[in-house]
Amino acid sequence: MPESSQTATLVNYKLVISYEGKNFAGWQNQADALTIQYLIEKAIQTLWGQRYPIHGSGRTDAGVHAYGQVANFIAPKKLKNLSDLRHALNHNLPAEIRILKCCLVAATFHARFSALGKEYHYLIHNHEIMNPFLRHLTYHQPKKLDLHQMREAIKFLIGTHDFASFASNPGYARASTVRTMQSANITAKGAKIKLSFRANGFLYRMVRNLTGALIKVGRGKLTPLEFKTILEEKKRSAAPQTAPPHGLYLVKVFY
Amino acid sequence: MPESSQTATLVNYKLVISYEGKNFAGWQNQADALTIQYLIEKAIQTLWGQRYPIHGSGRTDAGVHAYGQVANFIAPKKLKNLSDLRHALNHNLPAEIRILKCCLVAATFHARFSALGKEYHYLIHNHEIMNPFLRHLTYHQPKKLDLHQMREAIKFLIGTHDFASFASNPGYARASTVRTMQSANITAKGAKIKLSFRANGFLYRMVRNLTGALIKVGRGKLTPLEFKTILEEKKRSAAPQTAPPHGLYLVKVFY
Repeated sequence: MPESSQTATLVNYKLVISYEGKNFAGWQNQADALTIQYLIEKAIQTLWGQRYPIHGSGRTDAGVHAYGQVANFIAPKKLKNLSDLRHALNHNLPAEIRILKCCLVAATFHARFSALGKEYHYLIHNHEIMNPFLRHLTYHQPKKLDLHQMREAIKFLIGTHDFASFASNPGYARASTVRTMQSANITAKGAKIKLSFRANGFLYRMVRNLTGALIKVGRGKLTPLEFKTILEEKKRSAAPQTAPPHGLYLVKVFY
Repeated sequence: MPESSQTATLVNYKLVISYEGKNFAGWQNQADALTIQYLIEKAIQTLWGQRYPIHGSGRTDAGVHAYGQVANFIAPKKLKNLSDLRHALNHNLPAEIRILKCCLVAATFHARFSALGKEYHYLIHNHEIMNPFLRHLTYHQPKKLDLHQMREAIKFLIGTHDFASFASNPGYARASTVRTMQSANITAKGAKIKLSFRANGFLYRMVRNLTGALIKVGRGKLTPLEFKTILEEKKRSAAPQTAPPHGLYLVKVFY
């Protein structure tokens, strides 16, 4: 936060951010690791000579990507033109991270607490031969997945459920593991499969855990009804393994 | 070449190869540098305990990508199933390189000398903000390019011309700098622009040199007619700078 001696008017900046997660230890600041939050705070500090803490809509894990992460920070109004600010921040950021939008929002806006929901995509490359150009951007599945069965299974997620079976650390969600899944579907274009999830909130590693189980359905190791039973058991130990981070994208945060 | 003491029947293997060029010093073997040819020869050697020199359809420079590079090599027939060979080679290759196809061809087939033509694509990302996911895969051009003007210019390339103005080292083409451009066109989808070139052969850095000049047309620094004049001057010094390697893809070799 700026010092109280600061005389300039304070404003609330909202950033929309895209990043390729491969080279970073995730969103949130940690000691001795390169994080996206740290690099954006450093870019602001390089520009304005002072550190302003930024608030992300949520943490993304190491290796997870974003098309539309949102963050906000309170700072003095310094530049008339916000596209100049965006340009200057991008100049100070590594090429893996880009500020897509920069605007002023009401003082009450908070990237995390104001969020009404989020959309995540999980990308799978379903082809016998791995595609060198997609190796960091999709999860390679060499064996043919049964999309019909996966679509039967994913339907069970729609609506309000206790998603404890798909939370890697249920205690992390202090209040409740109940969330409302507004949409969940699977689209495919050639070998590229996209799983889309939109909910009012997501538990820790929830999309990767859901994807891990859905891939098992696609491989015929679980039936759609067994998938439904895992959801109903409400315990993490009932569910299969987590899908890796490099197929996951935070696409949009809704306010 | 296999030793003459080899008793097994020799066959001619044809490989179709895809690679992301960023981490390599190009296709062709050189001392103290990691090349794609070297890595494929090493993968074969790991499998069969002997080095068999492979012949590529042509060199690609450091950083240039391929969807469909072609190579061949003469070796004993060892595996009944060629998809097993492809699988084993991919297992021995880094993830940036993948053998897409492996088949047997006539003894007279040579990846370079039998080639009738090639197709290259050059990808440009034409948007104010660089896309982190495309940073190694397209050439970022922040200023809006005039595609209409670029299309007027690219038309002049169709047909048989002396392309000396677009050969970085004309002496490299010992016989002639005349080539026949069978097609050359520009397609765009949102911010992604694709320049496609198909010819009976390409001179050294020809596509990158053509692209460098076409981008100048797109930026209004050259008219289409001035582009035509550069072609007609038949000297490299007449043309603008070379576009960088990371937007270039060897897409297909025709036989």
